[in-house]
Amino acid sequence: MISFASDYLSGCLPQVLARLEDTNREQTTGYGEDHYSAEARVALSRHLAAPDADIHFLVGGTMANAAVISHILRPHQGVISAETGHIAVHEAGAIEAGGHKILTIETTDGKLSASAVQALVDAHWADFAREHTVQPGLVYVSQPTECGTLYSKDELEALYKTCQKLDLPLYIDGARLAYAAADPTSDLTLADYRHVSDVITVGGTKCGLLFGEAVCFFDKRLARDFRYKMKQDGGMLAKGRLLGLQFLTLFESDLYLTAAKEALEKADRLRQLFSEAGFTFAFETTSNQVFPILPDDICAYLRRQFDFETWQALPNDRSVVRFCTSWSTADEHLEQLAKALKSRPERYHATHL
Amino acid sequence: MISFASDYLSGCLPQVLARLEDTNREQTTGYGEDHYSAEARVALSRHLAAPDADIHFLVGGTMANAAVISHILRPHQGVISAETGHIAVHEAGAIEAGGHKILTIETTDGKLSASAVQALVDAHWADFAREHTVQPGLVYVSQPTECGTLYSKDELEALYKTCQKLDLPLYIDGARLAYAAADPTSDLTLADYRHVSDVITVGGTKCGLLFGEAVCFFDKRLARDFRYKMKQDGGMLAKGRLLGLQFLTLFESDLYLTAAKEALEKADRLRQLFSEAGFTFAFETTSNQVFPILPDDICAYLRRQFDFETWQALPNDRSVVRFCTSWSTADEHLEQLAKALKSRPERYHATHL
Amino acid sequence: MISFASDYLSGCLPQVLARLEDTNREQTTGYGEDHYSAEARVALSRHLAAPDADIHFLVGGTMANAAVISHILRPHQGVISAETGHIAVHEAGAIEAGGHKILTIETTDGKLSASAVQALVDAHWADFAREHTVQPGLVYVSQPTECGTLYSKDELEALYKTCQKLDLPLYIDGARLAYAAADPTSDLTLADYRHVSDVITVGGTKCGLLFGEAVCFFDKRLARDFRYKMKQDGGMLAKGRLLGLQFLTLFESDLYLTAAKEALEKADRLRQLFSEAGFTFAFETTSNQVFPILPDDICAYLRRQFDFETWQALPNDRSVVRFCTSWSTADEHLEQLAKALKSRPERYHATHL
Amino acid sequence: MISFASDYLSGCLPQVLARLEDTNREQTTGYGEDHYSAEARVALSRHLAAPDADIHFLVGGTMANAAVISHILRPHQGVISAETGHIAVHEAGAIEAGGHKILTIETTDGKLSASAVQALVDAHWADFAREHTVQPGLVYVSQPTECGTLYSKDELEALYKTCQKLDLPLYIDGARLAYAAADPTSDLTLADYRHVSDVITVGGTKCGLLFGEAVCFFDKRLARDFRYKMKQDGGMLAKGRLLGLQFLTLFESDLYLTAAKEALEKADRLRQLFSEAGFTFAFETTSNQVFPILPDDICAYLRRQFDFETWQALPNDRSVVRFCTSWSTADEHLEQLAKALKSRPERYHATHL
Repeated sequence: MISFASDYLSGCLPQVLARLEDTNREQTTGYGEDHYSAEARVALSRHLAAPDADIHFLVGGTMANAAVISHILRPHQGVISAETGHIAVHEAGAIEAGGHKILTIETTDGKLSASAVQALVDAHWADFAREHTVQPGLVYVSQPTECGTLYSKDELEALYKTCQKLDLPLYIDGARLAYAAADPTSDLTLADYRHVSDVITVGGTKCGLLFGEAVCFFDKRLARDFRYKMKQDGGMLAKGRLLGLQFLTLFESDLYLTAAKEALEKADRLRQLFSEAGFTFAFETTSNQVFPILPDDICAYLRRQFDFETWQALPNDRSVVRFCTSWSTADEHLEQLAKALKSRPERYHATHL
Repeated sequence: MISFASDYLSGCLPQVLARLEDTNREQTTGYGEDHYSAEARVALSRHLAAPDADIHFLVGGTMANAAVISHILRPHQGVISAETGHIAVHEAGAIEAGGHKILTIETTDGKLSASAVQALVDAHWADFAREHTVQPGLVYVSQPTECGTLYSKDELEALYKTCQKLDLPLYIDGARLAYAAADPTSDLTLADYRHVSDVITVGGTKCGLLFGEAVCFFDKRLARDFRYKMKQDGGMLAKGRLLGLQFLTLFESDLYLTAAKEALEKADRLRQLFSEAGFTFAFETTSNQVFPILPDDICAYLRRQFDFETWQALPNDRSVVRFCTSWSTADEHLEQLAKALKSRPERYHATHL
Repeated sequence: MISFASDYLSGCLPQVLARLEDTNREQTTGYGEDHYSAEARVALSRHLAAPDADIHFLVGGTMANAAVISHILRPHQGVISAETGHIAVHEAGAIEAGGHKILTIETTDGKLSASAVQALVDAHWADFAREHTVQPGLVYVSQPTECGTLYSKDELEALYKTCQKLDLPLYIDGARLAYAAADPTSDLTLADYRHVSDVITVGGTKCGLLFGEAVCFFDKRLARDFRYKMKQDGGMLAKGRLLGLQFLTLFESDLYLTAAKEALEKADRLRQLFSEAGFTFAFETTSNQVFPILPDDICAYLRRQFDFETWQALPNDRSVVRFCTSWSTADEHLEQLAKALKSRPERYHATHL
Repeated sequence: MISFASDYLSGCLPQVLARLEDTNREQTTGYGEDHYSAEARVALSRHLAAPDADIHFLVGGTMANAAVISHILRPHQGVISAETGHIAVHEAGAIEAGGHKILTIETTDGKLSASAVQALVDAHWADFAREHTVQPGLVYVSQPTECGTLYSKDELEALYKTCQKLDLPLYIDGARLAYAAADPTSDLTLADYRHVSDVITVGGTKCGLLFGEAVCFFDKRLARDFRYKMKQDGGMLAKGRLLGLQFLTLFESDLYLTAAKEALEKADRLRQLFSEAGFTFAFETTSNQVFPILPDDICAYLRRQFDFETWQALPNDRSVVRFCTSWSTADEHLEQLAKALKSRPERYHATHL
C-alpha cells in the first residue's frame, strides 16, 4: 500500500539519522541545555534573520500550540482562530484543557482576514456585557493553513498591523512552514516572518524530522519563563539534544527548504495528474497538500492501492480527499498513481456532476 | 569531561538506532496505530505476564505521570505521594496544573508504607470538615525511588492490599524500572508488578532508549479513553512507531534487563570505589544511583574531571552527591574515577567528620 | 427610570426577607448542613415529585453550571449546547476554564433537537480521527431558553431518549424554570422534569430570591461527592441556611409558581402593548422575556424613560430588544410604557420596513 | 444548644438586614455596577485610607482567595503560604484546581516570617534545576491567622519589604480582619494595611454580614480585568447590590470595628473563664478565637450544652479545641459556660497532666 495520507508517515531525512548515529555515545547536558541545541538555535535564527529570537524546541505540534497559547494568555482571555484552525479542530480540546476558549471565525479558505479579527475584537469591546464574555487575547493562524492555502505578505502584514493596533500578539503555527517558505509562488521567505508575527513555530515533524517543533518568540517578553511552562506541560525532552541535532541538520544548510521544494514539485505533479484526469479541487493550493474532489466510487477504486484522507463528504456521492507529499514521496508512487488514474475502468469516467 | 550526572546523557542502545535506520523509509500509520507499536505492546505485555494490559507509549515521564494521574482522578481528588516523589518535587507543578493537590507523606527513604497511607486516608474520612479538604484518590510510588531505594515484594504487597481495601488505585512510576527488575537483590521481577499495582510505567528514557515511557494499565477500566487524554495533553507522538520500534527492540529480547544489569554492575563498582576511599552513603542503594557523602573540597577536586549531581548540602562542608550509571557508562570512566580517588592529594584524606 | 432590563433588578419576594428576619439570631450549622436547608430539600423534592433527588444549593447560575458540568465530565469530554446557550455566550469562559470545550449546535430558536444531538454524536464516533477531537460527554439545554422559547414535553422526551441511547446525561439549566413551570401554554409541570433529564437547576435569583440556584440530581450517581466540588469551586456558602431559608419559603407553598404566574401575565401585557403598537417579535415567546423588533429611533425615545436590553442589531436601523418582567414588575410601570408607546411622536409611526 | 463553633452561625447585624428591607423594591443595575456598591467602595476605601484602591465584592472567602491568586499568578508559578494557611488546608484544593501549587512553610504560630520567605525564594533561584520546580509568584498570609495569632506592624513591614525586594506581591487574607483591626493590642489599624500589602480581603461573612468579602487591590496593576475573572469563576453576584448594601452598612460608620470589639471582649471573657478553671491555651491569642487545651472528658461534659470545634487531638486524652465569638455571642451564653465550668463534677478537676 502506498500512502499519501500525510507527511509524517516515514522516518526522517537520512542526514538527520546519520547525525544521531554520529553523536550517539556523546554525553551532553539534558533538557535542551546542550551545545547542539545552542547551535541549532543560532542556525535557525540566522534563517529567520532574527538573531534575538528566543527559540525553544518541543516534540510535537499540539504541545507547542498549547504551551505557547496558555503561556501568553491570562486566565480570562481566549484565542482567535479560524474555525478550521488546527487548535479548534484536531487537538482534542488541548486549548480548553488549558482553560481557554477558542474564539472562532468562519472562513472559506482557512485564512483569517485583518477585518474579521478587527470586527470580532470591536464587537467584544462594544459589548456592554463584555465582562460576561471571553476577552480576545491572542490571534492564531496557520501558514500554510489546514486547507493548504497560503497567506501572502500583504495579508499577513495587514493582519499583523491590526493585531498590533489591538494589542494582540500574533502567533503563526508553522507545522508545515517549510512548504510555505519553499513555495516559489509565495512572496514570504523565512526571513520575513519576524516582521509579521510575534511568535512562530517552525515545524519539523511534517518537514523531514523524526519529530520536533521550534517555537520562536520574536517578541522576547512573551517568552519569559517559557522553559518552566515547557517542563510543566511535559514538553521538555530529557535528551534535548535529539531536538537540537535534528534542527541543526535542517538549518546549518538549506536542507529545510530543499527537502520541502522536492515535496512541492511532487505535489505539483499530483495536481497535474488529477487535473488531467478531469477533476477539480476543493481549495486552490500550491503547497504539499492537494484536495481533489472525487466521486466516491473512484475513491474506492484508488483505495485498493493507495491510502489518502477523506476530508469532507459532499452531496451526490462525492468527497473532498487529501493527498500529501513529503521528502519521502517516491517518483514511482506518483507514476503508479498516474497509471491507476489513466487505467481506471470506463464506468468511472463520467464523473462530472 | 566524564559525566555521572544522570542516566540520560547519551543517545541510545545501538540496537535501537539500528532499528530506526532499518525502517526509516517505511510508511506507517501515525499516532501509535502502526504495527511496530502493536508488536511492542505484545512483547512488553509478555515480559509483564499481563496479556490483557492496556499499554500506551508516551515520550517522557512528566507527561506520562501527569496524563495518568489526571486521567484517573476526579476533579476534587488528590494523589498521595512521598514528599520526595518526582511528581512532588521535579515536575514543575504538572500535577497541580492539571488541577490536583499532591498529598505528601514524609519518609526517610523515599518509600511509602502501607500504614502511612492508611493513616492519611483514615484521617481524611474521620475529618468532620473533610469536604473542605482534598479527597485522596490515588497512590503514587516510584520503583526504584528517587533515593535509589527499592520496595520489596512484601512492601508492595502490603501497600497494594491497603490501596485495594481503601478503593484507591496504586500507580507505580517506573522511570528507572529496569534497574529494579534487573537487580539481583530485588525479589520482584517484571512479571510481579501486575499483582501489586493497577498502573505502572516502564521507563525507556533512563534505560537505554532515545526517549519513551510505556504506560501499562493492569486495571483496564482505568485506561478507558486514555488515548484522548494523551492527545489532549500533547503526548501522542505523530510518528508513533518511533516509540513502538524502540520498545520492541527492548522487549522482543531481554535487552531491557541485560542493559540494566551492566549498569548495575558498574554502579556496584562505584559503590566499591567510594567505600574503599572511606566514604559512606546517604541511602543504602543497590540500584544505578549511588549517593556518597563527600566533603565539599573533594567534590571540587573531582569536578575538575567528572560531572555529577549535588543532592543535598550537609553541615560541616559536606554534601550528598549522586553518581549514576547507565548502558553507556564506560569501564575507562570508572577506572579514571578510581584513579582520581586514589591519587587525591593528602590534604583531602582526613575527611571523616 | 423604570427598568425592564432583567428579572434580577430588585431584592426579593417580601416573604423571603421576612423569613431571614425571623431567623436572624438563630445559630445553625454552616455550609448547607442546617435544618432549613434539609427542609428546603424535602419541600423542593416534593414539587419535583422526586423524593430521591440529591439537591444542593448554590449562590449563582454560572457557578452552578460550571460545577455541575465539570463534576460530570471527564477531562477529555465536552458539553453539547445550543450556540446561544448561556454557558456558550455569557459565562466568561467558565466551562473552558474548567477544562472543557463546548460543542455548539446552531439553532434558530435556542432549542436543541434530538436529531441535531444525534447527528453531532454520530459524526464524532464515525470520525477516524475522533481521538484528536473532543468527545461529547453531556448535553446542556436551558428551559426556558435564552431566546425565551420553551421546550414541549414531546421535545424534551425525544431529546432525553436520544441522550439515554447515547449514554449522555442531560442537564437542564432552569435559571428561569419558574416561568416555564407556571406557563399555562407549557405541558410540563415541575413534576415532569425528572422524567426528561438527569440533572436540573431550579433557579431562584431570577425567580424572586435574593440569590440561589438549586442543583437537583435525579441520577444520584452523578451527584457523588458533589459537595467537595462545590467547596473547591468556592460555591459552598458559609451561612448555607440563607439558601435553605429562601428555597423553603418558595417551596413550602406554591410561591415559586404564583410569583412566576404574575410575572407571566405582565409579560403577556407587554406582548400586547408592542403588538398593538404594530411591532413584531424576534422570537415567539410566552415566557417572561419579550423580544420586540424596534426601530432604533423608537428605542432611543423609549430609553428616556425605560431601561431594556439590546439583544441584536438588525439591518435598516432596527434592533431586537429584550423586555423582562418579574415578581417586582409594577402595574404602573406597564401603564407608563403603554402611555409612552401610544403618545410617541407621529414621525415614529411609519416604522414597518 | 449554644454554639461557639464558629463566627458564621447566625444571620447578620440587624442594621444590615434593615438596609436590605429598606431597599428591597428598588431597581438597580446588576453585577456590582449599582450605586450602593459604588458608595460602599468609597466608604471602605476611606477606612483603608486608600482612595485609589480597586475594590471588588465577592460572596465567599474561598472564592475570593482562588480568584485573587489565580488572577495574579502565571501558570508556572505557585503561592507561598504557611502550612496552616486556609488555602493550604480548608479550601478543598481550590488553588490547585486553578492550576497552582502551594509552596508551604512550617510555622509554630501560623505566621510567615520574612526570613522564611526569603530562604524559600533563595533556594528556588539557587537551584540548578529550578525550571523543574514551581516558581514562587505570590505570598499569602492571613490576618488574624488560622491560629488566632496576629502579625505586628513590624512583622508585616519586614515581610512586605522582603516581598518587594523579591518582586512578589503580598496578599493578606482578611477573612476575620475586623478582629485584628479592632484589637487594642494590635498596632495596625485598617489604614495601615495599604503600606504592608498589595492586596487584602476585608471579610464580611465572619464579621457580621450575611456574606461577603471585599477584595481590595492597593496595587491597581494587579487588578486589571479582575471583573472578568470574577465572572468566569462564578463569583460575580447578579444582585450585586446585596454586597454593596452590606458593606456600605459596615463602613459608612464604624460598625465594622464596634461589632468586632464586642466580640473581642467576649473572647476575653472566654479566655478568662478557661484560665480561671485552670486550663492553658495552644496559642496565645487576643482575637475572637480561643484555643484551650482540654481533657477529652471535659470536652464530652461541655458538649452536652455547648458546641465547639476540635482543633487537634493531643496525647494523654487531651485536645486543642476552638471557641469563637462574634457579634451574636450573647452574654447569657458566656454565663452558662461559666456556670458549666464551675459546676463540673469533682472528677473532672484533676485535669493537669
